[in-house]
Amino acid sequence: MKRIILSGCNGRMGQVLQTSIKANDELVIVAGIDHNPQQNADFPVYATAKDVQEEADVIIDFSHYTAVPQLIEFAVTKKLPVVVATTGLEEDTKNLLKEASEKIPVFYSANMSLGINVLAKALQAITPALESDFNIEIIEKHHNQKKDAPSGTALLLADAINDVCEPKKDYIFGRSGNDNENKLSEMGIHAVRGGTIPGEHIVIYAGDDEIIELKHTALSRDIFANGALKAGVFLADQPVGFYNMSDLLA
Amino acid sequence: MKRIILSGCNGRMGQVLQTSIKANDELVIVAGIDHNPQQNADFPVYATAKDVQEEADVIIDFSHYTAVPQLIEFAVTKKLPVVVATTGLEEDTKNLLKEASEKIPVFYSANMSLGINVLAKALQAITPALESDFNIEIIEKHHNQKKDAPSGTALLLADAINDVCEPKKDYIFGRSGNDNENKLSEMGIHAVRGGTIPGEHIVIYAGDDEIIELKHTALSRDIFANGALKAGVFLADQPVGFYNMSDLLA
Amino acid sequence: MKRIILSGCNGRMGQVLQTSIKANDELVIVAGIDHNPQQNADFPVYATAKDVQEEADVIIDFSHYTAVPQLIEFAVTKKLPVVVATTGLEEDTKNLLKEASEKIPVFYSANMSLGINVLAKALQAITPALESDFNIEIIEKHHNQKKDAPSGTALLLADAINDVCEPKKDYIFGRSGNDNENKLSEMGIHAVRGGTIPGEHIVIYAGDDEIIELKHTALSRDIFANGALKAGVFLADQPVGFYNMSDLLA
Amino acid sequence: MKRIILSGCNGRMGQVLQTSIKANDELVIVAGIDHNPQQNADFPVYATAKDVQEEADVIIDFSHYTAVPQLIEFAVTKKLPVVVATTGLEEDTKNLLKEASEKIPVFYSANMSLGINVLAKALQAITPALESDFNIEIIEKHHNQKKDAPSGTALLLADAINDVCEPKKDYIFGRSGNDNENKLSEMGIHAVRGGTIPGEHIVIYAGDDEIIELKHTALSRDIFANGALKAGVFLADQPVGFYNMSDLLA
Repeated sequence: MKRIILSGCNGRMGQVLQTSIKANDELVIVAGIDHNPQQNADFPVYATAKDVQEEADVIIDFSHYTAVPQLIEFAVTKKLPVVVATTGLEEDTKNLLKEASEKIPVFYSANMSLGINVLAKALQAITPALESDFNIEIIEKHHNQKKDAPSGTALLLADAINDVCEPKKDYIFGRSGNDNENKLSEMGIHAVRGGTIPGEHIVIYAGDDEIIELKHTALSRDIFANGALKAGVFLADQPVGFYNMSDLLA
Repeated sequence: MKRIILSGCNGRMGQVLQTSIKANDELVIVAGIDHNPQQNADFPVYATAKDVQEEADVIIDFSHYTAVPQLIEFAVTKKLPVVVATTGLEEDTKNLLKEASEKIPVFYSANMSLGINVLAKALQAITPALESDFNIEIIEKHHNQKKDAPSGTALLLADAINDVCEPKKDYIFGRSGNDNENKLSEMGIHAVRGGTIPGEHIVIYAGDDEIIELKHTALSRDIFANGALKAGVFLADQPVGFYNMSDLLA
Repeated sequence: MKRIILSGCNGRMGQVLQTSIKANDELVIVAGIDHNPQQNADFPVYATAKDVQEEADVIIDFSHYTAVPQLIEFAVTKKLPVVVATTGLEEDTKNLLKEASEKIPVFYSANMSLGINVLAKALQAITPALESDFNIEIIEKHHNQKKDAPSGTALLLADAINDVCEPKKDYIFGRSGNDNENKLSEMGIHAVRGGTIPGEHIVIYAGDDEIIELKHTALSRDIFANGALKAGVFLADQPVGFYNMSDLLA
Repeated sequence: MKRIILSGCNGRMGQVLQTSIKANDELVIVAGIDHNPQQNADFPVYATAKDVQEEADVIIDFSHYTAVPQLIEFAVTKKLPVVVATTGLEEDTKNLLKEASEKIPVFYSANMSLGINVLAKALQAITPALESDFNIEIIEKHHNQKKDAPSGTALLLADAINDVCEPKKDYIFGRSGNDNENKLSEMGIHAVRGGTIPGEHIVIYAGDDEIIELKHTALSRDIFANGALKAGVFLADQPVGFYNMSDLLA
């Protein structure tokens, strides 16, 4: 039985986690933290981390980037492992995580879904055998309200590929006109927008008469909560250190 | 039994047609025309149309845009139906086709594959029910030596959609930055380039929690020859007039 | 402003409809009906149709197949248009709908999503041009808890195709062994099962060197509620008669 | 400059190799072997291996399974590295290859395309992280003249996955009826047949709200020739031993 402190318990992701944990006999939430500490659960909810009194095995955090520094301070004080799944962290906060990881187990990944991290690992496994003969292109699809293009996850995948490419590829974000041979030196990243698509990422390796495609489809944003929960269960048993999704997959 | 005069018989498409016709008991080539009139077939090959003496039911043309005007003149003189599958015609030549179609049956389409024309027809059938609630986007994929982007066929499909849209959509050819909601007023057209891909076109309608996709994949350029042959068989039995692939599908 | 009576208002689909209607200024729920008439909405909920007193423009029904006959009786008595989106109706009940449609407007479709019905329409538009030269196959994907295979929707699409085919095709549900050429006389229907996939249907037309694919992806089951709502708005203004999704698309 | 002896030089694959090698300044064919030793190339063609007098660096074999044993004998005698790309080998012949590999470098793979072997490697890399939570299914598509189902390559991929799964999965080849939950203990393999599709293989991992797909598309059968050529260039520089596509990718 793992005892969890859930930071951001009343947000959308926090609620998804509550449902998942309730359905799991091996897990229990002993306390919640939320800037809006309204009480409609069977565990106490506190406005700030420092008020939490309950004993626990791990903290899972889906709060707000401004709330993370004081959560880390609390985790270090209590010697508690912490999974930070909050997005949009400032550089200072990321450094804080690194420092804290010398005293407690800290888990942090730019994308908390299991699948995207598995995909990134597969891309790095196959790119070296293909990069000199195959053009590499990425298509990502998201809902029509998404303002940024390409998606952060598309860039994460492109960077994962480029990490193992030599020479490095230049990213381009569309093509039109009459001078568009796809040189091996470039990687096209295409952002499709429409309807309510939660997220789809396709990496295409196109060579002489054969094509390899790796694709990830998100059916809902719940996968980020699921990934954080797996990370929490994993982290509760780890020694002091800095962990990310690659460690979970190893 | 249909008797065919094959214009451009020694070019790549002409050779594909020769093979297809030889395999078909209902069809026979009675004469070939080619600026390079080398003789390695069981029919006579002439350097210019006016030298052809054989009787025929239809002309199929896969030559060069500069050769089309005198071929049309020949067809009108002989009262022969003519399928023009040569690409890159000048406006003057297209007008010539229109004029000729008052005296003989003339067949001309921007894309001679059956499948692309079927796809265009399907797009026009479904767009009116979807356009007010679904974003529409096109992805096309071609080999890495293709210079123009997007493909002429992608534009043909986009125009087919826009023909039945009100208001008309603006085409955009890529997305990057932070102001990219997909307004219903725009249609993204994405050109992927890689390897030896012969041609793939995907039209995506993305709405609230559902997506409809229509996709055409060319496995080789032979499909243009196949389409022209079907057009020839069809045209041999038609009255004077101007025809395109829509007539073949009706 | 359309006034709606929502039958089955406390079920999963009923709740989706409540949310959609609340977000729409043109629509209002004036009464609910549910065998479990618990009250947590801003409209009265009744256990049976006959108790409803409120004036309305249309009834939308997502209840249980056993509840439909008495709902129809109520609709006829009140001269109210009724959209029946409940699945699993018995033949007797379907006959009841037909009879009622001589006195009131009745709307009924085997699949209430807009997209699947658009797809079926497109399939019927393109099949005649392709059936003599292209093999036709269907792949459907659903979650791993679905017991029946293939899906009812896959059969609906197969039947839509077969309606316009001559001769009719035989359905087969998998292939193994050494005698598997795909004759034009058969249509393979392949049922993939995995994870939580809400529903995907792909129809493949494969011919000589070209492939056409039409695909529908459901991102959630909410699309059935959305389709029923569109049907309700449409039906409120129709004369007596029997309607289905084809009428909505016309 | 690598000097190649091409066994099966007048067959379909042999001709593809001739074209590829002619276009490559680093490679030259010094002799051909073919049971039909007609001469239309700029190198001598012999009816049997033992007649070949030319010096060479490597043998590439795309002949017939009955011709392989005497080719191996020749290779051992001449101390020449040999790539066997002929399919349908008998068990005895495979054993012969193993024995020979103690005296010369021998290269043999069930599928000679680079892409399929890259795919198999990627599948083995990601399966361990997914197998306990994701259903795994395979769809393969081939032309309508293919008699066997599923394809040998689909089974190769299924076996590659199963090699790293515990417990092992049972293969099933279609679903119909009413008892079809996809248990994690089974792997569905679906054989689509249509038109002239050269070959497509899709492996689907479907989990809670996310799907990962890996796909290989062959645009022509030339890829097997291309893979064999890469293998030949590689093998010419290797010490005595037994090699397959995994070594080429390492």
